[in-house]
Amino acid sequence: MPSYSAPLRDQRFVLNDVLNVQQYGNLPSFADAPADIVDAVLEEGGKFCENVLYPLNKVGDREGCTLKDGVVTTPTGFDDAYTQMTEAGWTALSAPTEYGGQGLPHYLNLAFSEILSASNMAFGMYPGLTGGAAQALLVGGSDEQKDLYLPKMFSGEWSGTMNLTEPHCGTDLGMLRTKAVPQADGSYKITGQKIWISAGEHELSGNIVHLVLARIEGAPEGVKGISLFVVPKYLPTEAGEPGERNTLQCGGLEEKMGIHGNATCVMNYDDATGWLVGEENKGLKIMFVMMNEARLGVGLQGLSLAETAYQYSLAFAKDRIQGRSLTGPKNPDGPADPIIVHPDVRRMLMNQKVFVEGARAFTYWTGLQADLEHKAADDATREKAGDYMALLTPIVKAYLTDKGYESVSTGLQIHGGSGFTQEWGVEQTLRDARITLIYEGTNGIQALDLVGRKLAMAGMRPINTFMAELDEFIAENEGNADLKLYVDGLRDAKAKLQQGTNWLVEKGLENFDNAGAASTDYLHLFGLTCFAYMWAMMAKSAAAKVAEGDTDPIYASKLVTAKFFVEWWLPDADAHLARIQNGAETMMTLHAEAF
Amino acid sequence: MPSYSAPLRDQRFVLNDVLNVQQYGNLPSFADAPADIVDAVLEEGGKFCENVLYPLNKVGDREGCTLKDGVVTTPTGFDDAYTQMTEAGWTALSAPTEYGGQGLPHYLNLAFSEILSASNMAFGMYPGLTGGAAQALLVGGSDEQKDLYLPKMFSGEWSGTMNLTEPHCGTDLGMLRTKAVPQADGSYKITGQKIWISAGEHELSGNIVHLVLARIEGAPEGVKGISLFVVPKYLPTEAGEPGERNTLQCGGLEEKMGIHGNATCVMNYDDATGWLVGEENKGLKIMFVMMNEARLGVGLQGLSLAETAYQYSLAFAKDRIQGRSLTGPKNPDGPADPIIVHPDVRRMLMNQKVFVEGARAFTYWTGLQADLEHKAADDATREKAGDYMALLTPIVKAYLTDKGYESVSTGLQIHGGSGFTQEWGVEQTLRDARITLIYEGTNGIQALDLVGRKLAMAGMRPINTFMAELDEFIAENEGNADLKLYVDGLRDAKAKLQQGTNWLVEKGLENFDNAGAASTDYLHLFGLTCFAYMWAMMAKSAAAKVAEGDTDPIYASKLVTAKFFVEWWLPDADAHLARIQNGAETMMTLHAEAF
Repeated sequence: MPSYSAPLRDQRFVLNDVLNVQQYGNLPSFADAPADIVDAVLEEGGKFCENVLYPLNKVGDREGCTLKDGVVTTPTGFDDAYTQMTEAGWTALSAPTEYGGQGLPHYLNLAFSEILSASNMAFGMYPGLTGGAAQALLVGGSDEQKDLYLPKMFSGEWSGTMNLTEPHCGTDLGMLRTKAVPQADGSYKITGQKIWISAGEHELSGNIVHLVLARIEGAPEGVKGISLFVVPKYLPTEAGEPGERNTLQCGGLEEKMGIHGNATCVMNYDDATGWLVGEENKGLKIMFVMMNEARLGVGLQGLSLAETAYQYSLAFAKDRIQGRSLTGPKNPDGPADPIIVHPDVRRMLMNQKVFVEGARAFTYWTGLQADLEHKAADDATREKAGDYMALLTPIVKAYLTDKGYESVSTGLQIHGGSGFTQEWGVEQTLRDARITLIYEGTNGIQALDLVGRKLAMAGMRPINTFMAELDEFIAENEGNADLKLYVDGLRDAKAKLQQGTNWLVEKGLENFDNAGAASTDYLHLFGLTCFAYMWAMMAKSAAAKVAEGDTDPIYASKLVTAKFFVEWWLPDADAHLARIQNGAETMMTLHAEAF
Repeated sequence: MPSYSAPLRDQRFVLNDVLNVQQYGNLPSFADAPADIVDAVLEEGGKFCENVLYPLNKVGDREGCTLKDGVVTTPTGFDDAYTQMTEAGWTALSAPTEYGGQGLPHYLNLAFSEILSASNMAFGMYPGLTGGAAQALLVGGSDEQKDLYLPKMFSGEWSGTMNLTEPHCGTDLGMLRTKAVPQADGSYKITGQKIWISAGEHELSGNIVHLVLARIEGAPEGVKGISLFVVPKYLPTEAGEPGERNTLQCGGLEEKMGIHGNATCVMNYDDATGWLVGEENKGLKIMFVMMNEARLGVGLQGLSLAETAYQYSLAFAKDRIQGRSLTGPKNPDGPADPIIVHPDVRRMLMNQKVFVEGARAFTYWTGLQADLEHKAADDATREKAGDYMALLTPIVKAYLTDKGYESVSTGLQIHGGSGFTQEWGVEQTLRDARITLIYEGTNGIQALDLVGRKLAMAGMRPINTFMAELDEFIAENEGNADLKLYVDGLRDAKAKLQQGTNWLVEKGLENFDNAGAASTDYLHLFGLTCFAYMWAMMAKSAAAKVAEGDTDPIYASKLVTAKFFVEWWLPDADAHLARIQNGAETMMTLHAEAF
């Protein structure tokens, strides 16, 4: 039967051997996370997720949420688990100490979040959304708002949501209609309908802090007239406690393919009381802070669910006996061999392994940039980290969910017929994973963000800096014979990414449709190149350990997996480049009626 | 809201323009299907599926099947639809006239089956399994068995199943334990448990004819000791009517990811009465007749569900307005443009279009071989058609379901958030489609069948014949400037397939693991080459019509879609070849514990 264990050994490999996070021990917040603390946090976090949240994963899927008289009931056990989680302080790991948080580095929260989503994604979204909403208030809220909301949100006593989508607009927020009417006391009356609001209504927390995009009466049309409001379920009293019920309610729950344990709500605001966050008509900018945070979180979910599926399929492949190895029995005393002896099963397992380990390195490496952006001592490091965050966010979100979903599907396939049955769990993982390609901006929107915005920003400084970092790594390591395979692979991928970038700069400006046509393949080529860098770095760390005589099998195994990556994944780079260079002409030829 | 229409225009394009099925009008069975009959059958079949079966598709998914006291109840409306279907004769289209069938060509039944599965796959499996079981009896049964069972099965009065899998063995049938004990009257007592039996129990038909693999007491171990039995739910009376209840029953229904409308049963046989079909210990050979039939049917399901999803996403993309075209408003009077103007949405739609139209040509072309194998006048054509059926069956099954599933997922993605909700239907299509990669032999097993069995058969005659046909097509058409792009694409893909084949012959024999390691990429390269051939043939037919001055927009549209295929799909050929040539070494290195 399926089970999940926190992948602590591999997490430590990335944090200690590859990223060497302790090198930043003199920086604020890093200083509070020496190696033994990091270990202890992950070990305790792992136990909590394995023992409390994972057993509720299937329960959440089967029971789902129910709505009655405006009250949403979450699946059995979620309430108790939420209390345990907040009491243990897991929601406040990397929150600022001035608002009651523990002030630990972002990367550590990211590593914990990986385990959280892997053990129970639908549950993890309740605190996850709260974290994003708190981040937006931290950036855009007034001191009064921050003092009122943040301590309760970081502690988990109150939760949070983000309200963007309306029935007629999701991607195109410029069309939104929810309106805000200014009141004499400085508050606003908010009226409108929002849909697909994750964690929009439930009884887990004492209050729900809705962040709502709306248009103030008389504001300009389009995206230039959108403001952000904080609209709590219960209006805070003078003492900051939940008071009168606000005039908003959940009007329905979405019936979905997966993440049944999370309440996806239609939210109706009917002259609800709200307060402006930041400036009038500048709401989108603050919401994008939250959105970027959330996009990294969704990319991480791509990894999390792929890890769960990998654990499932690996256990199945070792246990299930069926057929004989093509090169003679490997389990001669049994009636058949375990299916892990079959090359095609190994092909699938190795692909899963390449993905989860590569994605772990990539997300943690990116998460480290989030720390350095704010905490590094020098301006240059901060600027570089900020550039990387901007550039890489769409890639983390879309590449890791596209490939993560594929990886979960591979895991299901290894199960054969069992994979299609609810009993074995992996079909739930697949259904849950499918949303990650869609929410927080579809993967197509991520690709457009990359080619249309991130590539050109600051005179192409972020991509040029990134390319230079790759060149530097290649130059430093190309003399090392042990690393030749990996460095050659990286050099080759990077060259193709450069060609693709050059093509985009030239042809995308000539005709914007060329940029749109190339966007998804460009994003994939970029993601593949990031993986090539991660696998080269991991191979370097592992090779050094092997050279030192370290016999921990993880190191030898990393070198084999890195080789598989080069041999089996990098051949796709050519195809991506060819498609990038096709341009938009053929796909734009047909009239809509000719399809 | 989602809807489905039978794709009659494109079906006619393939049958009339590309395959020119009327050229065989002098052959038996073809003679009964002049163009007007073919048209009428498809038109009526389309109406039946659109109006009767499609409305039950969602019902079937939501209600599923229930088991109480051994009785399985199918979803509301299935019973009535089944009666309508059998009364109209749809189950007997291509069944032999001597058993009450209509004797029409196989390709026509295939075209109808496409519509059947597209409108309601879970429903279509009830008659589908019956067809496969009848085919096995037709090939392996005694005259008495055929006279007793076939007329009732072809009419749909009785239905059929295939019972292979047991809890401990699916792929590896050599391990099966269900036993058969000979009785004095020539019958056998069958005892054992079978699982995952589609349509195993229900009340739609008057009797259920189970074909069961079992081992006669004292039979050799492994696959050489497996016999096939016919084990009806009700023992036929002297008059051939359902009599006494046999001692078999449904012990449980599988809870699955999709195809909820079909009853997937645990079947318990407890000294049930059965009769040997064919010879003792030769059961697998007959079952493989059924299995091959079923595999083509599963490949067809890959097309069917992709077509449904394509219709859904195309309608959504024309209707949903969101954002503006990158090259200026295309719907200036509305608040936004329909999303079909965005290149990345078009990329997805064109990919869907390439798949469904390519898959339709490929399955119909293969289905035509099934007719020619039995009905062609000359030995050479029959032999070639039989070779093609053997060679291409694993490719039709696995390539069309791998790519078909991907295509459905693309369709879901176009829907954005709506795609994840049950309301829009496409998430059901995705859940239903996921089984096609698994049942009737996982796609990995298909790949092994291709490289381990089909490639080498008859001294490689089938693949050599196929390659020669491609060469001939290329030679005939390379002088035609209008076709240059498509013929060049085919030549290139074929050259890579030849390289991959040569590598397999050399390295696969050296080490069987090399063949296993390469198998899936080889199958995909083969499928891609088949698509290149189909698209070149379609382009040729379309170009000829355009040259004649035919202004039906389908012809101009085919040429654009064929171009998109060459530009966007063929670049994958190189990556497949590179992976084929990697060999098994890297993936076989790690010990099971090192994963």
